[in-house]
Amino acid sequence: MPAISGDDYLRRIDQLKTEVWYNGQKISGPISQHPAFRGAMKSQAELYDIQLKDNYKELMTYPSPTTGDRIGTSYLQPITKYDLFKRGKMIRTWAKKHGGMMGRSPDYMNTIVMAFAASASFLKGKTNCFPERLVKFYEEAREKDLSFTHTFINPQVNRSEYYVEDSKDPIAARIVDETDEGVIIKGARLLATQGGMTDEILVFSAGGIFEDDNAYFFSIPSNARGLKFICRESFQKGDSTFNYPLSSRFEEMDSIVVFDHVLIPWERVFSYKNIEVGNHFQRSSAFLPFNLHQVIHRQIVKLEFALGVAEEIIQSIKIAGYENVQSKMADVIVGLESMKGLLTKAEANAKTDEFGLMRPEVAPLQAASSAFPTIYPRVIEIIQLLGASGLISIPTEADFNSELRCDLNQYLQSATLDAEARVKLFRLAWDLTMSPFGTRQTQYERFFFGNPYKLASELYFGYDKQGAREFVQLFMDEI
Amino acid sequence: MPAISGDDYLRRIDQLKTEVWYNGQKISGPISQHPAFRGAMKSQAELYDIQLKDNYKELMTYPSPTTGDRIGTSYLQPITKYDLFKRGKMIRTWAKKHGGMMGRSPDYMNTIVMAFAASASFLKGKTNCFPERLVKFYEEAREKDLSFTHTFINPQVNRSEYYVEDSKDPIAARIVDETDEGVIIKGARLLATQGGMTDEILVFSAGGIFEDDNAYFFSIPSNARGLKFICRESFQKGDSTFNYPLSSRFEEMDSIVVFDHVLIPWERVFSYKNIEVGNHFQRSSAFLPFNLHQVIHRQIVKLEFALGVAEEIIQSIKIAGYENVQSKMADVIVGLESMKGLLTKAEANAKTDEFGLMRPEVAPLQAASSAFPTIYPRVIEIIQLLGASGLISIPTEADFNSELRCDLNQYLQSATLDAEARVKLFRLAWDLTMSPFGTRQTQYERFFFGNPYKLASELYFGYDKQGAREFVQLFMDEI
Amino acid sequence: MPAISGDDYLRRIDQLKTEVWYNGQKISGPISQHPAFRGAMKSQAELYDIQLKDNYKELMTYPSPTTGDRIGTSYLQPITKYDLFKRGKMIRTWAKKHGGMMGRSPDYMNTIVMAFAASASFLKGKTNCFPERLVKFYEEAREKDLSFTHTFINPQVNRSEYYVEDSKDPIAARIVDETDEGVIIKGARLLATQGGMTDEILVFSAGGIFEDDNAYFFSIPSNARGLKFICRESFQKGDSTFNYPLSSRFEEMDSIVVFDHVLIPWERVFSYKNIEVGNHFQRSSAFLPFNLHQVIHRQIVKLEFALGVAEEIIQSIKIAGYENVQSKMADVIVGLESMKGLLTKAEANAKTDEFGLMRPEVAPLQAASSAFPTIYPRVIEIIQLLGASGLISIPTEADFNSELRCDLNQYLQSATLDAEARVKLFRLAWDLTMSPFGTRQTQYERFFFGNPYKLASELYFGYDKQGAREFVQLFMDEI
Amino acid sequence: MPAISGDDYLRRIDQLKTEVWYNGQKISGPISQHPAFRGAMKSQAELYDIQLKDNYKELMTYPSPTTGDRIGTSYLQPITKYDLFKRGKMIRTWAKKHGGMMGRSPDYMNTIVMAFAASASFLKGKTNCFPERLVKFYEEAREKDLSFTHTFINPQVNRSEYYVEDSKDPIAARIVDETDEGVIIKGARLLATQGGMTDEILVFSAGGIFEDDNAYFFSIPSNARGLKFICRESFQKGDSTFNYPLSSRFEEMDSIVVFDHVLIPWERVFSYKNIEVGNHFQRSSAFLPFNLHQVIHRQIVKLEFALGVAEEIIQSIKIAGYENVQSKMADVIVGLESMKGLLTKAEANAKTDEFGLMRPEVAPLQAASSAFPTIYPRVIEIIQLLGASGLISIPTEADFNSELRCDLNQYLQSATLDAEARVKLFRLAWDLTMSPFGTRQTQYERFFFGNPYKLASELYFGYDKQGAREFVQLFMDEI
Repeated sequence: MPAISGDDYLRRIDQLKTEVWYNGQKISGPISQHPAFRGAMKSQAELYDIQLKDNYKELMTYPSPTTGDRIGTSYLQPITKYDLFKRGKMIRTWAKKHGGMMGRSPDYMNTIVMAFAASASFLKGKTNCFPERLVKFYEEAREKDLSFTHTFINPQVNRSEYYVEDSKDPIAARIVDETDEGVIIKGARLLATQGGMTDEILVFSAGGIFEDDNAYFFSIPSNARGLKFICRESFQKGDSTFNYPLSSRFEEMDSIVVFDHVLIPWERVFSYKNIEVGNHFQRSSAFLPFNLHQVIHRQIVKLEFALGVAEEIIQSIKIAGYENVQSKMADVIVGLESMKGLLTKAEANAKTDEFGLMRPEVAPLQAASSAFPTIYPRVIEIIQLLGASGLISIPTEADFNSELRCDLNQYLQSATLDAEARVKLFRLAWDLTMSPFGTRQTQYERFFFGNPYKLASELYFGYDKQGAREFVQLFMDEI
Repeated sequence: MPAISGDDYLRRIDQLKTEVWYNGQKISGPISQHPAFRGAMKSQAELYDIQLKDNYKELMTYPSPTTGDRIGTSYLQPITKYDLFKRGKMIRTWAKKHGGMMGRSPDYMNTIVMAFAASASFLKGKTNCFPERLVKFYEEAREKDLSFTHTFINPQVNRSEYYVEDSKDPIAARIVDETDEGVIIKGARLLATQGGMTDEILVFSAGGIFEDDNAYFFSIPSNARGLKFICRESFQKGDSTFNYPLSSRFEEMDSIVVFDHVLIPWERVFSYKNIEVGNHFQRSSAFLPFNLHQVIHRQIVKLEFALGVAEEIIQSIKIAGYENVQSKMADVIVGLESMKGLLTKAEANAKTDEFGLMRPEVAPLQAASSAFPTIYPRVIEIIQLLGASGLISIPTEADFNSELRCDLNQYLQSATLDAEARVKLFRLAWDLTMSPFGTRQTQYERFFFGNPYKLASELYFGYDKQGAREFVQLFMDEI
Repeated sequence: MPAISGDDYLRRIDQLKTEVWYNGQKISGPISQHPAFRGAMKSQAELYDIQLKDNYKELMTYPSPTTGDRIGTSYLQPITKYDLFKRGKMIRTWAKKHGGMMGRSPDYMNTIVMAFAASASFLKGKTNCFPERLVKFYEEAREKDLSFTHTFINPQVNRSEYYVEDSKDPIAARIVDETDEGVIIKGARLLATQGGMTDEILVFSAGGIFEDDNAYFFSIPSNARGLKFICRESFQKGDSTFNYPLSSRFEEMDSIVVFDHVLIPWERVFSYKNIEVGNHFQRSSAFLPFNLHQVIHRQIVKLEFALGVAEEIIQSIKIAGYENVQSKMADVIVGLESMKGLLTKAEANAKTDEFGLMRPEVAPLQAASSAFPTIYPRVIEIIQLLGASGLISIPTEADFNSELRCDLNQYLQSATLDAEARVKLFRLAWDLTMSPFGTRQTQYERFFFGNPYKLASELYFGYDKQGAREFVQLFMDEI
Repeated sequence: MPAISGDDYLRRIDQLKTEVWYNGQKISGPISQHPAFRGAMKSQAELYDIQLKDNYKELMTYPSPTTGDRIGTSYLQPITKYDLFKRGKMIRTWAKKHGGMMGRSPDYMNTIVMAFAASASFLKGKTNCFPERLVKFYEEAREKDLSFTHTFINPQVNRSEYYVEDSKDPIAARIVDETDEGVIIKGARLLATQGGMTDEILVFSAGGIFEDDNAYFFSIPSNARGLKFICRESFQKGDSTFNYPLSSRFEEMDSIVVFDHVLIPWERVFSYKNIEVGNHFQRSSAFLPFNLHQVIHRQIVKLEFALGVAEEIIQSIKIAGYENVQSKMADVIVGLESMKGLLTKAEANAKTDEFGLMRPEVAPLQAASSAFPTIYPRVIEIIQLLGASGLISIPTEADFNSELRCDLNQYLQSATLDAEARVKLFRLAWDLTMSPFGTRQTQYERFFFGNPYKLASELYFGYDKQGAREFVQLFMDEI
């Protein structure tokens, strides 16, 4: 099956009967009907539907190099600048649909699978590495339009610098055995966003490995035996889109993934027990530039959304005349334009890389990924400051449907909106900035690429400072 | 009845059968049993109980000047520094009980009633002012240990600078008639925190009045005919104190107050249709210093609580060794010590004022009230930055009570805590910083004293800069 | 004479014998020899010399459309993207020479003259406007490679919002008479950077005009009768390039310009007494995009220079390993890359405007101009924080040339540099950040485009927010 | 000689003929006449004169416990709160005289000598320690009113974390020999502020010592044989107090101190080659609280001065009406009041320590010392932002004394000041914030107590967080 529809997606996931635990109970019925999942799964299904719409098909799919069938653009390995721009437009199209709220819309993981497969040659000839399996798996995923979750965070037992786990039973997932059929994994990993609502889970080491048991790279179906997803509390607090315009629709669950002696069949093992690969594949592959490219596109859409919300609030209560409001909005605009500028630079300076991909320039993307964890929370804070007490006194849909309606109409009208429209707007702003969904979004963007200090360190050490140093040295020599 | 017990409080409020609307429905049973109120009312009852405990009685009460019965210290008009310190200790004692989370614990409003009454002489001889009624009412409140909500925010229709309401029907509450029995009020006011769970509602103008219909100062029972409280969504999302250690207990409701031709009997009208008094009484009375004194004491306890939470997180995952962690904690400590320093200065420089009260110095209290809306959100952000992804992957009480317990114990343990204690801690941090309860707390502290730009303006214009100017002028003259 | 050499420049300026006052005295000899001017004039001469160098000629000049002679690229009216990029490269080439320190290198004003002339059609048919004179003057300036100062700041008597000057004698320069020969100007203007070291002074109103006497647009030779330049204190504190690597070479003077009944001959009057033009020409013409385009290019070179200085310091004393150092440098890099990204976006989205020019997109350039006044001072502060006490204990060239040399060599060596090289580096950092030259640079960049609050206001009101609003509105409609 | 006069001071220093090098030359005449020193020495002399003035004598001196003569209050070992307040008032009295600009006014070092001597018992019985010599020396200093410089910064060769100097010839000063007469020191130390203009130089290790050669504590006369002071460039750029109201009077020189086999006679050696003492005496003694107490008092006076300058600017150009101006000034006021509050708290909570001194509480003083390096630069930046371009266009005294006077009077008047008074004010603001003197002041305050990250670390680890942790633990236990 090539590029799938929403229904295809929902049916396939429901059939998996993945082991997902919510609030102390194993989910038994179709997961797409469960309150903690139904909003996000419905929204994800709508994304898939767009792929098949006549006016989007050209953009959102491309002909399979093997079958000629239309397959998802998120799987496209870009060779030309045109390909790269097409990918960008595809990402923004989906992001527009969810306001940038679904950090793990399918293009996120599909991009990663695409980039890893394109970099398979890096694995060639390395011990315990199987590049051809990776390529084959990519092709399968692409042709079936598989969806993925992934996870690369180890349990947060002890975050001091030189901590090495010494518990007898694994805490962080590791290889505990190796058989004819494959490798056996035991232990846990954190923060599998969308865990349970995807076909597959992709797992790879993200550096900082000291023992070969912790080095692996594989993908397995979500319903693999021994695999368990433990959800956090759901931040979907109701189905009313009036009350919860975002959280009722885009609440992607995060879960802890427990591997209880899960067998990874050999054809799904792309690398194992190779510390060097575990530590370096992510950095040496095309992962970083394309992952960043996808994320930055989405984050820009999200900022545009936030700008729109802020401006709607300003217009509704007529505060554009205040110096401090203008100044705050200038900050928002500078943030948005800077992100756009960095992306434009990255695409303008894209070059063909060693894997034959049209790779965007990494430095501006890294700068963007280092700036966004500051820009986004600041924009969220600005919306809170603009909305002020108006973000607290917000009644619900049920209030408007009761005999209170007259009172509300009179007392909650704003300069330009009637009470209902105004409350709807402020509830949107609240859901974006103050609901548990909203605060998770902020926290998520803050740590999207990991610890900010680590990001800063990587940006600093990775950045080419030689030109600037020579500039100064020559300048001084001329004196 | 002098200083009351928790049961007294609950019984009295339930008997009022105040008209409170929640989510489109009028609350019918005892309000103290309603999910949106029971947590906060139980906690408030516990505060009252402390008054009567043997080891607290001396501190939390004092003998009534009229009856000799022990009455609540929050009603004490301080004449000496000892009185002032006693008040401070009483405030902290209650605040310790709720971690500073109940912005409207009874001492808040009792302090205001006490300060207004002490300033009654300001009203003497002024048109439409009745100082003796105010004093009498204070005595009644004090002797009966009445509880209050209040509200001084007008509906946020249009916040541009020179907006004057011109709707035919009042939006902001105003006097629409005057009869033998009293004045008639129609219109709304916003953000009555604890609205519906107090004996009385105190209403006064807070400046910026251009028409005499908007000038009034009165108190009426919460169940006055025509009075209606419309609640916002409750942020109490469950009764489990494991899951919601703060919001299950301290969620004070905010409500819109609608006056539908409410009669204010003359004996409860302290002033009306006197624009000058409406604009100036709050500033000219002892309101500001004592209100600030109560609030700053509570905010300091809250900061101490936040410091404790931050430090517990640091210890649990062993991150004290990081430069950035130390630097963030230094910010927290500087914030806390500065708040304490400002309060110490205010108390150290307290002087007897024109009303005979021992009044703390206002400048440092104003500085504190201007600083806290920046300090508190920053501390909250620091806790989020320290907790990182650990604030997202947090399972619930039900998970621990299920067969998942073993997995959780293994995978969520931290360096110093077992999984359950660690999750409990992180859920506390989440409830403080990221739950809808937590974000409302942050927003509440940010705007506690109103718009930050207005606060800055008042601080600047009110501050005595003459000494500094003369210092510079003399300095230059000497040259 | 087409594109001139440095000698041409120096000779021409010296011949003018412009009336320039320094420290209470009229400068009498050749101005290019005066201590307050010689450093900057020498550096400016070197810029002109580059125009004529074989390997730069192609870039730095182009054939005159009238004579075919090579004339300066800064006068080029860009019709194609190639032209625009050529202009950018020309700007950076000059800026590299002065490290971005000369805010008024000739390309700055030449760009303005070019942009105004290209927009002459805006003046067509308007009262008291003479577009053809403006075009003719541009051609003359271009062919003679004239240099300019300008000034558009009125004396800072009273900066409150609604101040209108009411003194009998003009303070802000205005038209006091009109004769057969031209208009007569009396009054002052501030901050003519490079005043006295250019051929001409260009004067135009910059908006905010209420009276037609204040509306004018003209250019006159610096030595016009009645024209006087009053210098501030010079920040060139010595000729030693070791001690003052920047201030000895790039100290552009700022001066107050006094017009004592200066006659502006009609052929040099481009517009007068037309309030509408005085208020709108700058904004409606091509001034803004091309002015910003020049400035942002220069500011980026300056940031690269600052990055180089910071990195040299880090390497010299081995502090790259500190988390806070990496984090500070990440800020610098994010600032630099953002500026570059904004410029890339502006050039990538350039379009032919109503005057036939290839105009860069304004929004990202405005965002850059709004961001730089924050970015630059922060980078300067970072250099100070990195250099720490090392920026205070810095001996002079004379110390190294004395018997102290041995001591200095021993005690001031750094991890990677000998004492002399290290002191040279730290003196450069000091001159960039802490000398009076350096602080003026910071203040200059902070206010380059005027009051930051005004900039923010213009950015906010000018920015197209409609797309973002519709995004949100559609999003809510779909719910 | 007890408390000395200004003349006494000048005469004594001139007589020493200390070896001071300035700009490659050894200073030969009386140092009090040298341009690099005369301003500060004259100002310091004026401080001494205050001691003897009738109306200040009581405050600025106290009767010697040994002779009964009046000696300087800065030497007073405070036993009571009264003593402590007296010390505070003495510090502020001197600071008022120099606007807080003289970081090393005599009270600074006298306080240190006083505190060390009071802590002599810490040295009792420790190897190579001579507490009685320290006490005796303190008494001598006190009775003669000796002045001091000191230095505890090692040359900044390599600031990476684990650097240990391995050069054969000492770079950082260390003990190279030990004879009958005393110990011999060779090497250098940095940043002896006032080096060359004091009677003595006090030298002690400030922690971080790994080798016993680097552990020492002694004092010697400035003119000791082999001792050499190498000055930085002077920031006194002229004697005109109109042009340079601060730098012409308060420019304290910083110098590199070179020990070329300097003999420290035994009676002046208080401790040597005791690593533990070298690392811990400073922290374990009364140094920290009293040092902080002196500095914070001075810094508060400096902030008041800056507040005065800011307010004078605001009044002179009428900008108090702007929201952003009010907001900036609120920041200044919050900073000032917080510093005052912290000091008040420290004094209010003072307790008798193990040495019998009335010791102020350290935590708030540390918080103040951690906050000021952020507060002060921000206040300086605010003055720059308020002054804007007005801080650039400032003519000199000579301009006003020339025929330009009329022009200046007309064009540089402000709303409330004539041109001369206004320029005088803006020159003061420039000297405070943008002159090389001003930037050195900012840098000096930023690093007064050392690296901000180290300060933060000490504050964090030293702060008593136990109370806050228990608060949270109990709170959770109660749930």
